[in-house]
Amino acid sequence: MSDPGFTPPAIDFRTAPERYRHWRLTVDGHVAWLGLAVDEQGGLMPGYELKLNSYDLGVDIELYDAVQRLRFEHPEVGCVIMHSAHERVFCAGANIRMLGRASHAHKVNFCKFTNETRNSIEDASAHSGQIYICAVRGSCAGGGYELALACEEIILADDGASSVSLPEVPLLAVLPGTGGLTRLVDKRHVRRDRADFFCTTEEGVRGQRALDWKLVDALVPASAFLADVGTRAQALAARSDRPGASTGVHLAPLARELREDGLRYSQLDVTLDRALGLATFDVHAPRTAPDSLASALAQGAAFWPLALARELDDALLHLRFNEEYVGTWVFRSSGDATAVLAIDDLLDANSDHWFIREVLLYWTRVLKRIEVSARSLFALIEPGSCFAGSLLELVLAADQSFMLDGSRDDAALPPATVALHAHNFGRYPMVTGSGRVAARFSADPAAVAQLERAIGRALDARESARLGLVTFTPDDIDWEHEVRIALEARAGFSPDALSGMEANLRFTGGETLESKIFARLSAWQNWIFQRPNAVGPSGALPLYGSGKRARFERGRV
Amino acid sequence: MSDPGFTPPAIDFRTAPERYRHWRLTVDGHVAWLGLAVDEQGGLMPGYELKLNSYDLGVDIELYDAVQRLRFEHPEVGCVIMHSAHERVFCAGANIRMLGRASHAHKVNFCKFTNETRNSIEDASAHSGQIYICAVRGSCAGGGYELALACEEIILADDGASSVSLPEVPLLAVLPGTGGLTRLVDKRHVRRDRADFFCTTEEGVRGQRALDWKLVDALVPASAFLADVGTRAQALAARSDRPGASTGVHLAPLARELREDGLRYSQLDVTLDRALGLATFDVHAPRTAPDSLASALAQGAAFWPLALARELDDALLHLRFNEEYVGTWVFRSSGDATAVLAIDDLLDANSDHWFIREVLLYWTRVLKRIEVSARSLFALIEPGSCFAGSLLELVLAADQSFMLDGSRDDAALPPATVALHAHNFGRYPMVTGSGRVAARFSADPAAVAQLERAIGRALDARESARLGLVTFTPDDIDWEHEVRIALEARAGFSPDALSGMEANLRFTGGETLESKIFARLSAWQNWIFQRPNAVGPSGALPLYGSGKRARFERGRV
Repeated sequence: MSDPGFTPPAIDFRTAPERYRHWRLTVDGHVAWLGLAVDEQGGLMPGYELKLNSYDLGVDIELYDAVQRLRFEHPEVGCVIMHSAHERVFCAGANIRMLGRASHAHKVNFCKFTNETRNSIEDASAHSGQIYICAVRGSCAGGGYELALACEEIILADDGASSVSLPEVPLLAVLPGTGGLTRLVDKRHVRRDRADFFCTTEEGVRGQRALDWKLVDALVPASAFLADVGTRAQALAARSDRPGASTGVHLAPLARELREDGLRYSQLDVTLDRALGLATFDVHAPRTAPDSLASALAQGAAFWPLALARELDDALLHLRFNEEYVGTWVFRSSGDATAVLAIDDLLDANSDHWFIREVLLYWTRVLKRIEVSARSLFALIEPGSCFAGSLLELVLAADQSFMLDGSRDDAALPPATVALHAHNFGRYPMVTGSGRVAARFSADPAAVAQLERAIGRALDARESARLGLVTFTPDDIDWEHEVRIALEARAGFSPDALSGMEANLRFTGGETLESKIFARLSAWQNWIFQRPNAVGPSGALPLYGSGKRARFERGRV
Repeated sequence: MSDPGFTPPAIDFRTAPERYRHWRLTVDGHVAWLGLAVDEQGGLMPGYELKLNSYDLGVDIELYDAVQRLRFEHPEVGCVIMHSAHERVFCAGANIRMLGRASHAHKVNFCKFTNETRNSIEDASAHSGQIYICAVRGSCAGGGYELALACEEIILADDGASSVSLPEVPLLAVLPGTGGLTRLVDKRHVRRDRADFFCTTEEGVRGQRALDWKLVDALVPASAFLADVGTRAQALAARSDRPGASTGVHLAPLARELREDGLRYSQLDVTLDRALGLATFDVHAPRTAPDSLASALAQGAAFWPLALARELDDALLHLRFNEEYVGTWVFRSSGDATAVLAIDDLLDANSDHWFIREVLLYWTRVLKRIEVSARSLFALIEPGSCFAGSLLELVLAADQSFMLDGSRDDAALPPATVALHAHNFGRYPMVTGSGRVAARFSADPAAVAQLERAIGRALDARESARLGLVTFTPDDIDWEHEVRIALEARAGFSPDALSGMEANLRFTGGETLESKIFARLSAWQNWIFQRPNAVGPSGALPLYGSGKRARFERGRV
């Protein structure tokens, strides 16, 4: 049904193991081996070769897919070993020629996605009982070591040659921006002066010093390297709370229809208005909830919250990479709030079942992905909508929300309501670790308590406004005008200023490793990605590999 | 004594109330009035007029001086009222034409200094018993409102016209980057959707909505505005713990000799090696300590820790603004560690005396200023040095430190030692709120406990290395070579990458309002300050006031 004159955008995030070009995924009982074997000729875009197991977005799309599938399709796996299919090189990090040629927007988007994927690896280790460990043999540099840093244990071959390094600063005039700097000092607690030395030493560190400085967790003789790593993995897997023998949920290929004016999925339509720079997400809720955990399991990937999470996830990534001129995302919903709350109850009652746990964790990650997107977020709550419980999180994630007070002129539908569920009180933490309601009322526990007392009730516009859940509540007479003015005004502002503003206003209160990576580290990297010393004609990225030395403007800013 | 062929740099941070052009400081018993009355023709640089009480660096240099003097020279003042000498306008914020003309480096430096000054205002309110309140009449926009946000109370005239606003995003395509965004949501706990609306609304908010949304703390009728504010100030001053009738310590003009190759003060020499981009700070410690609080008070501004703090402060600012090509700062010391520790004991024993408290707080701020400087920091610990207690904080602030193991070849001086004091365990918190020792060993309380047991002992190079206090300990044979290699390598790296790396490695662990302003907010603002939408030929800053509309590249990054 796609428009015949319409060329689909280049970047598709949908893949599956049988189509991987860069990773080898092998499941051996309770342990999975995830081997990096980058196809040099398999770059996502032309103009570079992926030498030395270096990666581009295409490699990372496969990694993300593998991490997702291990969670859902392999309940029996309690430990995942990241390793390299090459003996001499673990991974050289992000491909420099790719970075040198990429637009500023692509670089920023690429780093954000790779960061999210590494965070999802840590999330699996921390919350899914699927512990990632990293077996490093050969050179493990830059983004390669950042991948290792996202694992719970780094095992380094003690062969006099294998090393870890973060050579970005001395070699490329950019940062180890995929979590590297943050994880060194805030996760692994490497002493800051040692971290400083390490990050300014091109050749990196190996052997005993790497262990003494906490850069790795174990040194293992090269002779029995993989066997030793395998034994450690078995021991970790044995401690996992994942079911040893359960059948997984197959993540069937995601069906979507790509049109010139948007995307159509089973539970989600996205409509684009490119003139206004607007994407409207219409989320559809089912009429009924499965009556039991067994029914939900039988539905598998079609189980509504999982189906919707996958579709949202795919749509978010599609829009980020392929629709950069669409600066505002608007969330709407339609369906039965009672069914949404019933599904939330089912999730809540079975939250310690591995599959339900994965669904809840996936929702957490999708909601995080929405908030760290450099897009303005609006929610429109109209008659017929069903923003309840888990779906209400979309409203709470929005920068501003509008709720129609009363009925439409034609009164065909009753006035819109929203409803709270226990899920709104911390089940889906933001990157800061705080729930959205708690963050919204950070200094006002009384307001939070009042909301808790309102759980389950249908809240109309006035009550929602009184409780602080929505921003504005125009009636039918003003609705069209007010919403249009807000969206048009947004489209008129500088996209950069909006991205910066939103990144500061959305994340109040405490910080985590994750929020520090997105806020501090990424913001600095983005700044550096615009500096002539990195990207100018004499900058380090374009000159890399040319034999010419970068020439730096020496002023300190 | 200055070189006759040498033109002194343009920016001098030394001033005094009798020379103010932009502020009127009046002390009335326990209350001080700090009135903004910007001289339109008094811009620090040519090319713009400071209309509508807008400010540039010159205005802020005076503000910083006033805040310092109020602390030291006016122990009787318990409350400071920030207000405007103009009835119709409080302050229009940073001068846009100045920003439009300024280099990227100046913009970033300017914002950092204004941020530090606002932080020092909050520090006075929080720790000095000198509470700042802000009386807003007329328009209070952008940086004007950010100044108000740094005060503990904002009192808005209820006259139907007075308003507060943060119009940076809609008007200028930049952020309210002087703490505005952070203080809205993290200090005042303005609900994030309201903050979003407020920051995208050029005209701002006034009257009851400003109060309801927590943008201000009180509405006061215009008829008795200043009288009412004065009464509130009296009440706040009455609750202050500052001595009502003590004599202040006059901050005598800072004597310094500016040479082409550096700066000379009484307790500090700074030597510049522009070829290597190196500034060496030689800190001199006294032979003896005052024998009592009374002696310290009698010394006044000559009391060593105060004298040194002032000199360091002036040197840091001088180097930041006037020596941007000097990218590495090296700290050395000479003198008697016993005297340094004795002074630390005196400070410790009298830390609740208003003057000693101010000295300790000033050291805290100077050390913070060092760490948020975009310069590489090294410490060299050699025979004859006296890095003990408060001075040891300079070593702990450094990115890397080198300590000479053993004596020099000539053995004229005994081997270098360092010494810990109770002050090293939290007395001088970093911007993150953590002490430097605690941050250095964030996951290792046993290491901290071991250091506590070493308080007061002279620790030689081997013991210092074992305890983790220093990075490298070459002996005399290797010293010259190792230090030179390290400093030369540093000089070869991209200054931007170093700034980004250091900003990420220095500040581990938790976050505060202050650290979020320097990390998240400033990093985003610096990014935006390079974006064509803000600073390009069709960007908002250069076109401001030209009658032409900025044209934005609409891609979202």
